[in-house]
Amino acid sequence: MNSRNALDKYLADIKPLDNSAMKAAKARLDNLVKPPGSLGELETITARLSGISSRMHYDVSKRCVIIFAADNGVVEEGVSAAPQAVTYTQTMNFAKGITGVAVLANQFHADLMVVDVGINTDIESPLVINRKIRKGTWNVALREAMTYDEACKAALAGAEIAIHAAEEGCKLLGIGEMGIGNTTTSAAVLCALTNLPPEQAAGKGAGLSEEAYRRKIEVIKTSLERNKPNPADPLDVLAKVGGFDLAAMAGAFIGAAYMRIPVVIDGFISIVAALTAAKLNPLTKEYMFASHASGEQGYAYAAQTLGLEPCLHLNMRLGEGSGCPLMFAVMDAACAIMRDMGTFQQGNISCEYVEAVKNADFHIGGL
Amino acid sequence: MNSRNALDKYLADIKPLDNSAMKAAKARLDNLVKPPGSLGELETITARLSGISSRMHYDVSKRCVIIFAADNGVVEEGVSAAPQAVTYTQTMNFAKGITGVAVLANQFHADLMVVDVGINTDIESPLVINRKIRKGTWNVALREAMTYDEACKAALAGAEIAIHAAEEGCKLLGIGEMGIGNTTTSAAVLCALTNLPPEQAAGKGAGLSEEAYRRKIEVIKTSLERNKPNPADPLDVLAKVGGFDLAAMAGAFIGAAYMRIPVVIDGFISIVAALTAAKLNPLTKEYMFASHASGEQGYAYAAQTLGLEPCLHLNMRLGEGSGCPLMFAVMDAACAIMRDMGTFQQGNISCEYVEAVKNADFHIGGL
Repeated sequence: MNSRNALDKYLADIKPLDNSAMKAAKARLDNLVKPPGSLGELETITARLSGISSRMHYDVSKRCVIIFAADNGVVEEGVSAAPQAVTYTQTMNFAKGITGVAVLANQFHADLMVVDVGINTDIESPLVINRKIRKGTWNVALREAMTYDEACKAALAGAEIAIHAAEEGCKLLGIGEMGIGNTTTSAAVLCALTNLPPEQAAGKGAGLSEEAYRRKIEVIKTSLERNKPNPADPLDVLAKVGGFDLAAMAGAFIGAAYMRIPVVIDGFISIVAALTAAKLNPLTKEYMFASHASGEQGYAYAAQTLGLEPCLHLNMRLGEGSGCPLMFAVMDAACAIMRDMGTFQQGNISCEYVEAVKNADFHIGGL
Repeated sequence: MNSRNALDKYLADIKPLDNSAMKAAKARLDNLVKPPGSLGELETITARLSGISSRMHYDVSKRCVIIFAADNGVVEEGVSAAPQAVTYTQTMNFAKGITGVAVLANQFHADLMVVDVGINTDIESPLVINRKIRKGTWNVALREAMTYDEACKAALAGAEIAIHAAEEGCKLLGIGEMGIGNTTTSAAVLCALTNLPPEQAAGKGAGLSEEAYRRKIEVIKTSLERNKPNPADPLDVLAKVGGFDLAAMAGAFIGAAYMRIPVVIDGFISIVAALTAAKLNPLTKEYMFASHASGEQGYAYAAQTLGLEPCLHLNMRLGEGSGCPLMFAVMDAACAIMRDMGTFQQGNISCEYVEAVKNADFHIGGL
């Protein structure tokens, strides 16, 4: 079975959420000692977890951020201030535990899994999983990033990594990345999938000069014109203007949905990968949770297209998967509500009151 | 010394943040292995904690949500769907650990302190601190809520509770409430302090009928016209149209600033109390952190007036202090970044690169 067929098998096996479990969850939430709906997104999250798991109570204490690292040939075009070697250096720093995502994963009791899907350097580290497709993509300003078969292989690698994590007992995933040049490829993929103009997809950030920003936009335009990605075939889009990192991340979203475990989106690159997965099978969306509103232009459009709203507004733009552990804490809160709150009966709140609040402008501490 | 004088002493002793500690914090943050500023609000939070504590590293692991509970005479006007007895019932439920804030405080390792500043019922519980001013305020639609002296006493009680918590080793506070009727009094206080029209201050929420909402607005208007609170004297505003809960909460914000410990705002009622404290001394703002964007109308205006932006967008409207523990987790993340991330040197990132990223459109995983 080739990679595309293997991936298609996973895609075909993704199930919608369990509606009866979600209904039961909502019934319990409405009977907890608070106005129905007053815990907002915490209620939505825990109900969705019930739909995903077919259980009233879902335990997210074993969780993992998976970082897919790869080099991108497009850095030749000068779209990045960082030298390409930083992809390798930071990948090694993840394993050392000194990067932003490593510190935050540790703070919120999440494991970190680092996967090399295309770094330009040979890596001999037991802490970095080797699923290298090739040492870096081609330069999308000159030709396609990779072959169609390589895109399928990278996506399959991502799916298999996520599936393996779930099989090992992981109940919640976060998807991050490391790959100098990947805001450019992500913007190109977003444009190809949605027809968004590059000016609205490419990030200007805090310090990019007007000239460098214009160059980045031109490179994205050139990559789209030269490679003509087919929006009806997301794997063709990944192959033509994406990267090994993006393809593997898209695959990881598919793998999580296939295994029926919730998966958290980080920032811009992560949400473009999530959108790509959703274009391959819209049911993958049911398993996705947005974490933070990335400062990178294009994030908001991708989130809106997916129909997801981030809970955290922290103006972060680090990438790596650094927003995922924070969202894990929000999900811990959602699970705790369902697990530990008392019912109206346990709280000695009268029936008349319960009926009243169910129809009221409610604020239990301040009607 | 009377209550007003005692409160004035605390107000006069509030110091601005330590600028040199904040500069040192920022210098360290800019040397951590990430683009400067790329962790957004997490960086701002940890730098502010340095300014508050005059230390590079601040430990927020011992923290507490303080809930001030009181009854409000205005419930006679039918501005609330809940019977007044729910103030008492929920206060007892906090101690049982089954309410939203109790569950979330437990999840994020925060203590809960419940203070009765004016519940209509006698309470004999070792778990509820008795600082009762009086059994409920008067109905603000008919007369002032309390005397000026009572407002000062309630504010002083709140300040003393916060000071005591800090003296006991608490490094971080959250301020919550329980008091049926207190969205009405909070809206009236907000209008009195800022001249905002009642239509824009009063919350309509999810289920309030158009008629009940109009009645709530009329009650607020009546309370303002009848009592003529003096916006230049926030304690007069609290006395005329506020509540014991609001006054004590405002005092707690003052006590936290006096003790130089950070203090987290919950939702609408909490932010109106915070705004009242800031009107008494603008330096109190330096110690405040907004948590979540409450769904209650009026919250956004109060936050904007204070110059604070909430990090969490969860559409919560429970009150009780339930947003505070979630913000504690965000602050844990901020402290972890400062404490545990490696420097560029430790991360083997070259000097040229560091210089480049300091001037760049940055995303370490995706330039």
